[in-house]
Amino acid sequence: MYILGIETSTMTGSVAIITEQHLIVEQTINTKITHAERLITAIDDTLRAVSLTIREIDGIAVSAGPGSFTGLRIGITTAKSLAYSLKKPIVAVSSLDALASQFLFCNQLICPMLDARKKEVYSACYRNSGAMVQRVSEYVVITPMNLLKEIHEPTLFLGDGVAAYRRQIESELGELALFADAAHLLPRGSLVAKLGCDRLLAGEQDDCSALTPLYLRQSDAEIHWERAQIAQ
Amino acid sequence: MYILGIETSTMTGSVAIITEQHLIVEQTINTKITHAERLITAIDDTLRAVSLTIREIDGIAVSAGPGSFTGLRIGITTAKSLAYSLKKPIVAVSSLDALASQFLFCNQLICPMLDARKKEVYSACYRNSGAMVQRVSEYVVITPMNLLKEIHEPTLFLGDGVAAYRRQIESELGELALFADAAHLLPRGSLVAKLGCDRLLAGEQDDCSALTPLYLRQSDAEIHWERAQIAQ
Repeated sequence: MYILGIETSTMTGSVAIITEQHLIVEQTINTKITHAERLITAIDDTLRAVSLTIREIDGIAVSAGPGSFTGLRIGITTAKSLAYSLKKPIVAVSSLDALASQFLFCNQLICPMLDARKKEVYSACYRNSGAMVQRVSEYVVITPMNLLKEIHEPTLFLGDGVAAYRRQIESELGELALFADAAHLLPRGSLVAKLGCDRLLAGEQDDCSALTPLYLRQSDAEIHWERAQIAQ
Repeated sequence: MYILGIETSTMTGSVAIITEQHLIVEQTINTKITHAERLITAIDDTLRAVSLTIREIDGIAVSAGPGSFTGLRIGITTAKSLAYSLKKPIVAVSSLDALASQFLFCNQLICPMLDARKKEVYSACYRNSGAMVQRVSEYVVITPMNLLKEIHEPTLFLGDGVAAYRRQIESELGELALFADAAHLLPRGSLVAKLGCDRLLAGEQDDCSALTPLYLRQSDAEIHWERAQIAQ
């Protein structure tokens, strides 16, 4: 079973194809070129690299956020279009769950943190339980300070929020703060594909037409639209 | 500082560019097309994807094995040619060290295992110490049975040796055997680049002309050559 994983919740775009057992191909690109410009090319490149066609993909896993509004819209729209046109199952995966799953078998509390702008981050906390990484708190959009107030044990931070708030984390938590290195910091298509594959194997799938990003808060466009409506 | 990481110790070829803080780009391809045919293209693709040129790379990290004789020769020859022609520092990284570093902050014994053919594996054991994964046994080429006899605690296995010997590991170790999932099983250029970057930052580098793969045993070609010499 070939699963295509699409991750666009940060500036790092990542596309991967995995089977139940193996990573077949992955391309991760951290650049300012927008996902809109490069996502379909990236999918096509990864397929070509391993001589697969899009019709041979058995299911599509997509990062549903939280994360960049525009990135998520592009990723989910692309995933839905492929699932619809190819009649393949689609499964959504939380970007924070996928990030945390990078640290399988880690003993510390795991705290992925994605930059939500406006001096806030998207976050949730996770612990390893057996060979699974499980979420142990709600998904939140929160100021780093309010998040850090709740943490009282050695905690591993990762995600693009670390780049923005590393000093603050270190100054608040001191030696309790641990950080992922450059190779483990950012989201990956293979992690989205792996969690999506688990959901598909468990018989789950999402409704292609109803699937929407997990935003946690309104986009600026929505806020402006509502204000415009009220003002009318 | 941009570090190019090259990993060709198994059938999975992986090329990445990282800085001290971030993964910039990575391409991982698990296919039967030989490294000789695809490595330079993969390096060129990754550079182009993020609008970098090879002259902007500040150092080259290459997986020196153990692993596939042919894969390592291609990877190291390519890395040395680039380092020589561009006058950039080169650092070798053990394929097993890079694999183990996938499991930063993991509490279990970590045992990467690469298929060495002839019913043997290349292996070494590792433990996390602070934010570092450290080797705690010699690099060996060994039968899986003799390796498993030495293991008496929960141990995490990864590498392409797992695909070949998973049943044997499970039957010998029972619940002590833990396995990496599809997203964490195989070597990655980013891990090689990260360990290479650490060496470069510590002021280390290897002698470009003297750098050779870590084979642990002779290749068939060398054995046949020696036998032919003796027979003469």
